[in-house]
Amino acid sequence: MLPNVTPTDRYDAPTAPRAGRAPGGTLADRYRAVRAWTHVLCEPLVTEDYVVRSMHDVSPTKWHIAHTSWFFETFVLSPHLPGYRPINPRYAYLFNSYYVQAGERHCRAQRGLVTRPTVAEVYDYRAHVDEHMLRLLAHLAEAGVDDPAFGSLAALVELGLNHEQQHQELILTDIKHVLWTNPLRPAYLPRNAAAHSGGSAPVALDWAAIPEGVHEVGHAGAGFAFDNESPRHRQFLEAARVASRLVTNAEYLEFMADGGYHRPELWLSAAWDVVRAEQWEAPLYWEREGDGWATFTLGGTLPVAPAEPVCHVSFFEADAYARWAALARWSGARLPTEAEWEVAAASAGPASDAAGTFADSQRFHPAAIGGAAGAGAGGPAQLYGDVWQWTASQYTPYPGFRPAAGAIGEYNGKFMCDQWVLRGASCATPRTHARLTYRNFFPAATRWQFSGIRLAAGA
Amino acid sequence: MLPNVTPTDRYDAPTAPRAGRAPGGTLADRYRAVRAWTHVLCEPLVTEDYVVRSMHDVSPTKWHIAHTSWFFETFVLSPHLPGYRPINPRYAYLFNSYYVQAGERHCRAQRGLVTRPTVAEVYDYRAHVDEHMLRLLAHLAEAGVDDPAFGSLAALVELGLNHEQQHQELILTDIKHVLWTNPLRPAYLPRNAAAHSGGSAPVALDWAAIPEGVHEVGHAGAGFAFDNESPRHRQFLEAARVASRLVTNAEYLEFMADGGYHRPELWLSAAWDVVRAEQWEAPLYWEREGDGWATFTLGGTLPVAPAEPVCHVSFFEADAYARWAALARWSGARLPTEAEWEVAAASAGPASDAAGTFADSQRFHPAAIGGAAGAGAGGPAQLYGDVWQWTASQYTPYPGFRPAAGAIGEYNGKFMCDQWVLRGASCATPRTHARLTYRNFFPAATRWQFSGIRLAAGA
Amino acid sequence: MLPNVTPTDRYDAPTAPRAGRAPGGTLADRYRAVRAWTHVLCEPLVTEDYVVRSMHDVSPTKWHIAHTSWFFETFVLSPHLPGYRPINPRYAYLFNSYYVQAGERHCRAQRGLVTRPTVAEVYDYRAHVDEHMLRLLAHLAEAGVDDPAFGSLAALVELGLNHEQQHQELILTDIKHVLWTNPLRPAYLPRNAAAHSGGSAPVALDWAAIPEGVHEVGHAGAGFAFDNESPRHRQFLEAARVASRLVTNAEYLEFMADGGYHRPELWLSAAWDVVRAEQWEAPLYWEREGDGWATFTLGGTLPVAPAEPVCHVSFFEADAYARWAALARWSGARLPTEAEWEVAAASAGPASDAAGTFADSQRFHPAAIGGAAGAGAGGPAQLYGDVWQWTASQYTPYPGFRPAAGAIGEYNGKFMCDQWVLRGASCATPRTHARLTYRNFFPAATRWQFSGIRLAAGA
Amino acid sequence: MLPNVTPTDRYDAPTAPRAGRAPGGTLADRYRAVRAWTHVLCEPLVTEDYVVRSMHDVSPTKWHIAHTSWFFETFVLSPHLPGYRPINPRYAYLFNSYYVQAGERHCRAQRGLVTRPTVAEVYDYRAHVDEHMLRLLAHLAEAGVDDPAFGSLAALVELGLNHEQQHQELILTDIKHVLWTNPLRPAYLPRNAAAHSGGSAPVALDWAAIPEGVHEVGHAGAGFAFDNESPRHRQFLEAARVASRLVTNAEYLEFMADGGYHRPELWLSAAWDVVRAEQWEAPLYWEREGDGWATFTLGGTLPVAPAEPVCHVSFFEADAYARWAALARWSGARLPTEAEWEVAAASAGPASDAAGTFADSQRFHPAAIGGAAGAGAGGPAQLYGDVWQWTASQYTPYPGFRPAAGAIGEYNGKFMCDQWVLRGASCATPRTHARLTYRNFFPAATRWQFSGIRLAAGA
Repeated sequence: MLPNVTPTDRYDAPTAPRAGRAPGGTLADRYRAVRAWTHVLCEPLVTEDYVVRSMHDVSPTKWHIAHTSWFFETFVLSPHLPGYRPINPRYAYLFNSYYVQAGERHCRAQRGLVTRPTVAEVYDYRAHVDEHMLRLLAHLAEAGVDDPAFGSLAALVELGLNHEQQHQELILTDIKHVLWTNPLRPAYLPRNAAAHSGGSAPVALDWAAIPEGVHEVGHAGAGFAFDNESPRHRQFLEAARVASRLVTNAEYLEFMADGGYHRPELWLSAAWDVVRAEQWEAPLYWEREGDGWATFTLGGTLPVAPAEPVCHVSFFEADAYARWAALARWSGARLPTEAEWEVAAASAGPASDAAGTFADSQRFHPAAIGGAAGAGAGGPAQLYGDVWQWTASQYTPYPGFRPAAGAIGEYNGKFMCDQWVLRGASCATPRTHARLTYRNFFPAATRWQFSGIRLAAGA
Repeated sequence: MLPNVTPTDRYDAPTAPRAGRAPGGTLADRYRAVRAWTHVLCEPLVTEDYVVRSMHDVSPTKWHIAHTSWFFETFVLSPHLPGYRPINPRYAYLFNSYYVQAGERHCRAQRGLVTRPTVAEVYDYRAHVDEHMLRLLAHLAEAGVDDPAFGSLAALVELGLNHEQQHQELILTDIKHVLWTNPLRPAYLPRNAAAHSGGSAPVALDWAAIPEGVHEVGHAGAGFAFDNESPRHRQFLEAARVASRLVTNAEYLEFMADGGYHRPELWLSAAWDVVRAEQWEAPLYWEREGDGWATFTLGGTLPVAPAEPVCHVSFFEADAYARWAALARWSGARLPTEAEWEVAAASAGPASDAAGTFADSQRFHPAAIGGAAGAGAGGPAQLYGDVWQWTASQYTPYPGFRPAAGAIGEYNGKFMCDQWVLRGASCATPRTHARLTYRNFFPAATRWQFSGIRLAAGA
Repeated sequence: MLPNVTPTDRYDAPTAPRAGRAPGGTLADRYRAVRAWTHVLCEPLVTEDYVVRSMHDVSPTKWHIAHTSWFFETFVLSPHLPGYRPINPRYAYLFNSYYVQAGERHCRAQRGLVTRPTVAEVYDYRAHVDEHMLRLLAHLAEAGVDDPAFGSLAALVELGLNHEQQHQELILTDIKHVLWTNPLRPAYLPRNAAAHSGGSAPVALDWAAIPEGVHEVGHAGAGFAFDNESPRHRQFLEAARVASRLVTNAEYLEFMADGGYHRPELWLSAAWDVVRAEQWEAPLYWEREGDGWATFTLGGTLPVAPAEPVCHVSFFEADAYARWAALARWSGARLPTEAEWEVAAASAGPASDAAGTFADSQRFHPAAIGGAAGAGAGGPAQLYGDVWQWTASQYTPYPGFRPAAGAIGEYNGKFMCDQWVLRGASCATPRTHARLTYRNFFPAATRWQFSGIRLAAGA
Repeated sequence: MLPNVTPTDRYDAPTAPRAGRAPGGTLADRYRAVRAWTHVLCEPLVTEDYVVRSMHDVSPTKWHIAHTSWFFETFVLSPHLPGYRPINPRYAYLFNSYYVQAGERHCRAQRGLVTRPTVAEVYDYRAHVDEHMLRLLAHLAEAGVDDPAFGSLAALVELGLNHEQQHQELILTDIKHVLWTNPLRPAYLPRNAAAHSGGSAPVALDWAAIPEGVHEVGHAGAGFAFDNESPRHRQFLEAARVASRLVTNAEYLEFMADGGYHRPELWLSAAWDVVRAEQWEAPLYWEREGDGWATFTLGGTLPVAPAEPVCHVSFFEADAYARWAALARWSGARLPTEAEWEVAAASAGPASDAAGTFADSQRFHPAAIGGAAGAGAGGPAQLYGDVWQWTASQYTPYPGFRPAAGAIGEYNGKFMCDQWVLRGASCATPRTHARLTYRNFFPAATRWQFSGIRLAAGA
């Protein structure tokens, strides 16, 4: 009876968009492509799904699609497009996330309680912002400053697009949690279980060597990067090894079978408190099914596939797994530092060519490694896509880090406290959003992201 | 773009239904009328409104309309209609409120997190239940036992209809809170402010006398009543007086102006803790507007009208107001006990003839008393409709009270602890749901109901 | 090494004082006797015991002995003894409990964090107050107005003494909880387990009849009573029966063995929430010992004695037990209302002659009924002493109740919300503090008082 | 009346002990000296002071003096002294802090609720442990293995002594909080206010340069160090500067006067949440006094002395101050990393010769810098003593870090999550406990330690 909103209807997309991959190449093309991908992600949702905030870390889909528009309105249109009029001035209050310098904002805890504007009205808001953004981008193109490497306004647009891509990933992780919270466990996109488990034979874990010495890490040169990836700088590293692939469900099940969740000596003190308080027994979304385990995915509840990378583990679990692995499997095993990860990954190919599972595939679940993987000449496999990889590094500024001036400077720097860095990208990340120097970060107990484990060890 | 669900479309109602007033008189007629009124109340809502739970006491509209159907399905159809098949067996889990003996139920705290079944699917569920209920009621009519006074199954249906009427009131009180929680403060049904303030001149407060002696209170005889209204029994009352009308906003503003919210000696100890913790300064939904006060109503934010009854006050505030009034206005003033209220009201006409504002009027806001009110021969005015009236009685069982057997026995009795009785009815109550012996009850700090104040005093 | 404070050293008591029983009869005699009993109760304590607050309801012993002195200082000495100088003006802030009109006070939550004044300094404070009180009482005696029935100042002193007796009971209930919180479970006064279990044979439960009609309840006439016991007034009661004795541990163990703590249908809704949240399985202080149960007492941990009255149960447990008993043992069983209790008890002898266990005996634990008990001509047994008895009455004001003027008026009235009345007295109550019309009251989940169960039933 | 326990009475100390400074030099001498210093610190306390836990981070003094004995009993005596019998086997449960592998332990939250064993009994426990420890140390000396550099048992004793010194610092920081929580604000050791403010003239802030390159940090060689200070390893540092002295109260007052606590742009996001939730306006223990500020010290409440180092600030405040200073005073100012601090401090003299204020002086409050300080040839001043210095480094393991085997391995490593490193030492640290490579660590919001600020900047 209720015809569900189909957001892509309004974007006469003759061919299905890929996640933010611009066919042509102008900034306007890229703008259209990124914005359209948000709508593709929302296609499977019914109106009710857009409203709910199922836990502290989650935001309603409606909020995500409004907030990403608010970003362009606040930081691009209002200051830079003469005569721009907001569709509703109160939206600035409702859809600001945490930018203190951008004015008062609605309490995060109440995001899931706002029924109006409706989903349809928020799509109208998006259309209003898009119309004006495209007008502005046309001006930039005429003026020849639509290359983000040169124009500061174009750079701001590029930041907004990367911001939207981050929220695209959150739309997926958040709606997964929302749907799982429902005892009926509805699927986002039903999937054939047969398509789920990949990789028939296990792939041996190999190690990529890092030589002792001073290495350079961090972003430099052209191409977009967030401020927290700069400046490129030197770090002294001891000789070390980084695992050639991710830890699999089969390996993680060994840890569980060996009492992993019941042995305090494997856990950080704060981790053990959480394990007991939350009664953790397995990764998030896992539940017992007969003698084995099933896991809730965006394609519905499916058996845990042994060869797939373990996913939805916290830093605490990744760290405990590594301590266990050092005792039981690989002497000296631990998590890599973010510098070790980056140095090891630098020898592999770029994210744009990686074999991993990105959001673009619309699988939305990590896949088993292909038969040929391993630490070959190209370095470790499974670096990008599938799951983010927890590192042993707390998230602090690089030497010489300077956040941008003004409210935009609140983007990253003010969160550099008590978080842990993750590297790589996940099956919810658009491929064009992944890169070598990317620093993702979450608190140690976080599990609702597509986060997994890559090991490292001393030389 | 999103055509909003219009639930009454499916009920070919040639004339607008009145709140549960059956035109004809069979139980099936009454069933249709009560169920249709729920849909009338939902007419102004958009899909998003149905999903949200804005605080602990609130349930989403979607839950209300499903739960009331669950009640008929669980207690009437499943045990009594041979071959009845639920549309979805999981709904029994999702939509049970608190009936322990009716099986496991979904955690109340998560009611606002369930996006599926969708609103449309819940309306399908209602239609499924209605179809089978009407089939069953036809059987009852054929068998001549559709009079609730005679048939136990008919009595169960009547209980289900009264249950639905309670949830109709909750739909209104809950959606009012949901809409108010939204900083945009959307109206449920916009109303002209001019229509808001009624009663040009203040009406003097008079008193109805209650003679000393043994009085009878409680329900007896034919006609529906909840189990907690029985048995009818005797109580000794000292001579007393009950106010002829409700306390007005103008009178309550005097209390506020006299420092009412800042004088601990006027408050119960537990009340004072709440006043400070919640920083109460006025009734719920009031906010300062210039030098005066405005109040959020289902018709939008409107100025506080002096002659209207004060509304959305807790027992704590009603009690503090009475203490203040005893010092400042009417010596000996206090709240009436529920027995005093009932004895005083027994001398007035029945609720079915009362002049008060019921949900039927779709005003959804209390109105000022008409010019002619006062304690005439007919007893006190404003007894029913407008606002529920807090009493000085905690909610305990009547002597000889016995709850019904089975899960239905959980309806009332198990809540007889730390609640306070309210009498009368409010502007959100269907008129056919109000009666002399009705015992409403809520905790002392409750404010989101349409609750107000009637005073009493010693002789 | 640390010579423990022995508070009675300073009171040259040639013979051991009995709990507030004045040998002679002047108000000064009674003052000395009551105050000395507080010190007797503190004899077994070490300094460290005085400081701790083991849970929300508990106050440190040091606070109790200071607060009772503060009461005399604030309400008697400062206003009525010309030239009185407090030993330390800050004590008025530290030792005010909840009298808002007596000035600012220290947060209750921090009572257990105050190390100075030391215990010795608080005893100095007591001595200072005593010295001036006895001077004042000598003046009153000279003026011939030291009879509380005639002099308002003498009445205030009498109130202070009754207040101190209440805190004497709290000193015992609170230190019991403090010592039990300690995993070493130290005893207050070690006792021989053999002396513990009394009453060889079970005593049959009989019933005392209450006739239908208008009864008078409440305090009137001479003799001290708290304001909440007045005025004496009429109540209509249906014919009923009140049990001749208390419910025993043996009977309560039957309830437990019959799944009492696991059957939601026996519990009020709020009760069931507490049972699950707190994982109640037995009365407070009980713990499994082999196949049976032991209980922590002020005399140490002892086996649960079958014939002793069940103790340390909440209203919730008393109510659930009664529901179970109605099904399993005595049809129609329930808790008595406070009026029923008082009418039944009025036919028995006064508390001053009762056979029960009072604090005076220094047993500090309820005892089994003597062989001869039962509902004889003298009415029910075990009315006073042993355990307080939960009633089915919420604590509300009597018709016509008026609290005293000023801060003293905060004594009782402001707590008349969401509490339940207990009647009788316990093994921690001084005998001179017990009487027919006494209204004790606590919230429904309270268990650290010596509280038990007496049943009632319809006629 | 209550003769207070004077713990040093039992140690016939002819001369006042200095904080853990052993006159002679054997391990037994050092053991006696360190243990005696604990007793010196407890001298000013009354029995009641020993019992209280005023907030989450605080432990009662009684617990500290028992726990430090438990450490020797559990890790030294029980495994290594044949025939050793604990004075009370339950103490192992009561006084274990967090060593999961050493058995079950009493809940930290309940430490402040234990009245027995009494303080005197805990001193008996200490004496029992001391007697056996000295017997064991005599054996070690006879065997010639009492040098911690050679004997593993001697190393364990040395660890126990360093552990006790950490708790000596906590005894001071905790009792300061306990006494401050008391509204009477009693002093630990009253001090003349005149003696309080030191340093007549302000000392200019200078900078010590760190050259770009690979530096070595961490502990190596002989001498005691905790496991977390190893292994010594290389780090690449950019050229930088470290301030020659600590930030003073006068400088911090400028930050406050410039709106420091009200400017969100100066604070980390998590910090700003705390500032608002806790309503921070100044360092802990500061309160307004007239137009200025006073601060509670172990010597009582004294005016804030402008030339003294600011103290009792959190990492959050240190970080916000540095951001402000970069804008307002010293361009590029920030907190030093722990490696920068260590490299800068390595060029100064050892802690054993430092001019700073240690616990040994019994001043227990930081002092203004002497007139001659500054970044001379000897490197920065005020490195050790006075206040711990927050660094920009989260507390993570050094490359190659391996915790010890068994329960002792829980000492440091399991806390390496979401803490920040502090370097130096404070006025509550025994001088013999301070050293160049020491890594102290606390969560970012911690303020009850003697913690202050040293700035750094790029080259």
